[in-house]
Amino acid sequence: MDEEERVALLTRIRGPRDLDRLTPAQLAELAEEIRGFLVEEVSKTGGHLGPNLGVVELTLALHRVFDSPRDRILFDTGHQSYVHKLLTGRQDFSRLKMKGGLSGYPSRAESEHDVIENSHASTVLGYADGLAKANKIQGHKDRPVVAVIGDGALTGGMAWEALNNIADSRDLPVVIVVNDNERSYSPTIGGLANHLSTLRTTQGYERFLSWGKDALQRTPVVGQAMFDTLHGAKKGLKDFIAPQGMFEDLGLKYIGPIDGHDLQALESALTKARGFGGPVIVHCITEKGRGYHAAENNDEDRFHAVGVIHPDTGLPAKTAGKDWTSVFGEEMVALGRERRDIVAITAAMLHPVGLAPFAKAYPERIFDVGIAEQHAAVCAAGLATNGLHPVVAVYATFLNRAFDQVLMDVALHRLGVTFVLDRAGVTGTDGASHNGMWDMSILQVVPGLRLAAPRDAEQVRLQLREAVEVTDAPTVVRYSKGSVGPSLPAVGTVGGMDVLRREADATDGEDAADVLIVSVGAMAPLCLEAAELLAGRGITSTVVDPRWVKPVDAALPGLAARHRLVVTVEDNGRAGGVGSAIAQALRDADVDVPLRDFGIPQEFLDHASRAEIMAEIGLTGPAVAARIEALVSARSYARS
Amino acid sequence: MDEEERVALLTRIRGPRDLDRLTPAQLAELAEEIRGFLVEEVSKTGGHLGPNLGVVELTLALHRVFDSPRDRILFDTGHQSYVHKLLTGRQDFSRLKMKGGLSGYPSRAESEHDVIENSHASTVLGYADGLAKANKIQGHKDRPVVAVIGDGALTGGMAWEALNNIADSRDLPVVIVVNDNERSYSPTIGGLANHLSTLRTTQGYERFLSWGKDALQRTPVVGQAMFDTLHGAKKGLKDFIAPQGMFEDLGLKYIGPIDGHDLQALESALTKARGFGGPVIVHCITEKGRGYHAAENNDEDRFHAVGVIHPDTGLPAKTAGKDWTSVFGEEMVALGRERRDIVAITAAMLHPVGLAPFAKAYPERIFDVGIAEQHAAVCAAGLATNGLHPVVAVYATFLNRAFDQVLMDVALHRLGVTFVLDRAGVTGTDGASHNGMWDMSILQVVPGLRLAAPRDAEQVRLQLREAVEVTDAPTVVRYSKGSVGPSLPAVGTVGGMDVLRREADATDGEDAADVLIVSVGAMAPLCLEAAELLAGRGITSTVVDPRWVKPVDAALPGLAARHRLVVTVEDNGRAGGVGSAIAQALRDADVDVPLRDFGIPQEFLDHASRAEIMAEIGLTGPAVAARIEALVSARSYARS
Repeated sequence: MDEEERVALLTRIRGPRDLDRLTPAQLAELAEEIRGFLVEEVSKTGGHLGPNLGVVELTLALHRVFDSPRDRILFDTGHQSYVHKLLTGRQDFSRLKMKGGLSGYPSRAESEHDVIENSHASTVLGYADGLAKANKIQGHKDRPVVAVIGDGALTGGMAWEALNNIADSRDLPVVIVVNDNERSYSPTIGGLANHLSTLRTTQGYERFLSWGKDALQRTPVVGQAMFDTLHGAKKGLKDFIAPQGMFEDLGLKYIGPIDGHDLQALESALTKARGFGGPVIVHCITEKGRGYHAAENNDEDRFHAVGVIHPDTGLPAKTAGKDWTSVFGEEMVALGRERRDIVAITAAMLHPVGLAPFAKAYPERIFDVGIAEQHAAVCAAGLATNGLHPVVAVYATFLNRAFDQVLMDVALHRLGVTFVLDRAGVTGTDGASHNGMWDMSILQVVPGLRLAAPRDAEQVRLQLREAVEVTDAPTVVRYSKGSVGPSLPAVGTVGGMDVLRREADATDGEDAADVLIVSVGAMAPLCLEAAELLAGRGITSTVVDPRWVKPVDAALPGLAARHRLVVTVEDNGRAGGVGSAIAQALRDADVDVPLRDFGIPQEFLDHASRAEIMAEIGLTGPAVAARIEALVSARSYARS
Repeated sequence: MDEEERVALLTRIRGPRDLDRLTPAQLAELAEEIRGFLVEEVSKTGGHLGPNLGVVELTLALHRVFDSPRDRILFDTGHQSYVHKLLTGRQDFSRLKMKGGLSGYPSRAESEHDVIENSHASTVLGYADGLAKANKIQGHKDRPVVAVIGDGALTGGMAWEALNNIADSRDLPVVIVVNDNERSYSPTIGGLANHLSTLRTTQGYERFLSWGKDALQRTPVVGQAMFDTLHGAKKGLKDFIAPQGMFEDLGLKYIGPIDGHDLQALESALTKARGFGGPVIVHCITEKGRGYHAAENNDEDRFHAVGVIHPDTGLPAKTAGKDWTSVFGEEMVALGRERRDIVAITAAMLHPVGLAPFAKAYPERIFDVGIAEQHAAVCAAGLATNGLHPVVAVYATFLNRAFDQVLMDVALHRLGVTFVLDRAGVTGTDGASHNGMWDMSILQVVPGLRLAAPRDAEQVRLQLREAVEVTDAPTVVRYSKGSVGPSLPAVGTVGGMDVLRREADATDGEDAADVLIVSVGAMAPLCLEAAELLAGRGITSTVVDPRWVKPVDAALPGLAARHRLVVTVEDNGRAGGVGSAIAQALRDADVDVPLRDFGIPQEFLDHASRAEIMAEIGLTGPAVAARIEALVSARSYARS
């Protein structure tokens, strides 16, 4: 058939109800079309390919059995919602994750079928509990709430808290669909994973039930006695036969395991679940990357998230330069060789945070704790209490989950734990919840914590080494996503700070100029560019990189006092960030030189490329230079 | 016997090993002595009486079976460590929780037997996992790590994350002692609680096992067949007979339930657990307040934490004035009557946060989610998504646990959820982890969030009402612990701010003076006192209460510009607090009037009374006035 025919079915789906009239054969064809569409389109733009290939049939079944948006269908983490988008009127993937294009996650601005758009994992059950409780209060107790959650996300503490509550609401129709692909980013770990695995290998609860019935009928007298005896243990027969223990023990009905690529089985199970009238778990077994040979053959992460790739081979269309992550990964291997007390922790993201080489070199010193940042921090506290030095590597935005633990379990206990924050600053295309713009603010409040923002690859290595030398306080090293820029050597130092640019000033002596520009981490090239532009306009400046931005270097107030204006530049939210901390340090030293702080406005940023966002928020060399120039001329800060 | 004889045994215990040589009769006597000691001593000072009366035998058994500090014994939350203190050389309770006296929690400064001192719940299993993993790496795989955790704390997500990891470490000797009293502060809720209850009512696993053995022996052929059949289901016999499902399903050995007041049974179970060589749960049933009739007869919280009481009756020795909590509690009842969309959420602290009257009036609109602040926030997001307005009431310090959820699940989704933070500011006697000194900093970074700090009872009512009117953003109302002061009416307004004091200044016009004092919440009396003292020294001031401290009132920069010095005073950590936010707002408005911010130094504060701490950190009227005076004279900010 020709190209037009090939996508004919999909293009006729304008909304979920268009699925109702399709025959089984047409549905199978549609599933094929969707897979073809995903591989072709996501190869062009990049995106979460593997997870979406795994949920084609599941999403079809959900929309056939439930009536969205009246019935709420919630996707945890949300990167597996591409099929859902295709079925709810969003089929233009040409600008996926780009400015003005479709979001890579559910988005309430896009569709009434999207309810939650937070891409941090494990939240969906909590929402479901709240939505169902609200339905009940509002007299809509019959409206089901459907929560789709991966087996990996079930390892998160929030999921447990929610399960515990949902299980207590025996009359609320919450359908929990466990999308079990045995891996979140990489294979799921822990006791729960083992339990799910037991459930998977049991070949079906129904078979057990029918076996039990047969067995009892064959030996009626003993059978009855056996039944009565078991019944006397205050649990129903099925609890003894099917190993579905923990969910039923909590009070949740369990249906499964279901083949997540068998549309009919899925629809049958979901229909049963819908009619149950209480909380129920539907355990579906899916295959990440299903139907795309390049993904199926990739054992690392089955194409969890891809950049632009060639659709046939699955190979990257282009290779980028060395990135921050791999610099860290290499240095960790070196550190592991030198120091046997160095251990590493990841929260289900071994590869993305660059710890795979360390894990390979020192398998006994790496711990993957699951999607469980809280545990990552507290387990690290335990390891450090016994004298080891843990390095916890997470995405900057996910450390928010462990704020209380960094504060109370690590800092209060004065333990030497190093947190390495990847993807700090504006990350862009993954949208508001992936930007790492919170860490340098919330970590300011943690007593004793030391925070490093390296500006280049060399500083990543150096500051990581300085961090793991600290034994009595948490340390943090944070850096950006993507390629690391060229080396930026210091031209001098003031206190513990690197001077990146200084302009001789005959009148005021060393390190004195019109403007002191304090550059934080990856902002160095921007600051140097701004300084260069200012020099061309007759405004002298000193550019300094404090390296360690917390605590504020003791030499900073004195240096500030030798300038007429202080400017701070950071790729972090402006509220309570490095600029605020420096301003406070100046106040405390009674240095009342005017200060202006540049950073990310305290807003949720729509998805777009990093460069587009940085330009929009005024974080470019020319924009910063222009604002400094305006300030200097308006208020005569310059020495003229 | 006379008094001296009565405490003779206890005083001879200098360390855990002194317990080894005691006879069963002496141990029983010692338990009696300890209970008498606790009732008498804690009645004088106040403290966590109920929880400690419940763990007398358990603590004795732990210290007899395990060899602390070589074997690590960890107490979750830590308020049940009084008996542990008594057995590890700390028997002077005369200044419990007071400056220089014993801490109300474990404290590493006090004893090598104390390992963790964080009083936030559910952390102990994470520490245990880390400690055990470190032991293994360091070649001490045989050293057991013992974690004592309440059934309530098991509802916290961190506990789940840790259980999932511990269960995966089949060879690590982690002994998890579940201290199950069916209540944390009040009765424990949720699916887990129901499961524990099932375990409790099973009358003993051992009895089942022996019954099973008998039954099989009586009918050998059928018995063998039954055994084989059950065995063929890939689970051992006992899994089918004892309803110990979920822990075993996760991969944790389960021993229990054990009578937590039967010393011999406890020792036997713990000895078995010690020898197991892998992770094991010992499920102990205890009675909070055991042996103290006044506590046993108190159904509300069994004297969880008491102030100074009369030891015989258990009645408070004195009654304090109206407190902030009850003002909130009353207003919630009124609001609930007026608006049917108002619902309330507590994280296992219905009474302490003042929601009991609301719960009584509107039982269908109150949700106790367990010790699960993350779920409290996300469940609230779900409720708000469906159009209800949830009020989540927690202690200020515990909101740290839900930071990510407030940010991503509530604020990003622009949902109208109100968080009410009790015990904000310095609380004092409960030590570093109970002070509510973080909230006004970390919440600054949350886009759209509005934060109110009421100064008196009237403002609590008013601002709570203003908060629940906001439908598209999180709102926060935070107030102190204890008695609320007298009403402080405004003498005028500027923008949305209340002016509490203004001094006519002929030269500079309305609301102009030497110093602008910005008072946050409960700091108003302090600020007014400082202003009065300054007036006596010829320094004029305006005192303004912004009421809503986030966002900064638009009128503040203009008001600041009519003064020569701005001073902010808040009972929150200085880093990134209200003072920093105001300083930034002034910078953004190009108002470069010098500012000084007063608040809590960014340190962990030792336990002492609130007044002692406030004096130490310079947060008193005279101290603030003196510093302002020094600033004014040194830098000629005054107009004269």
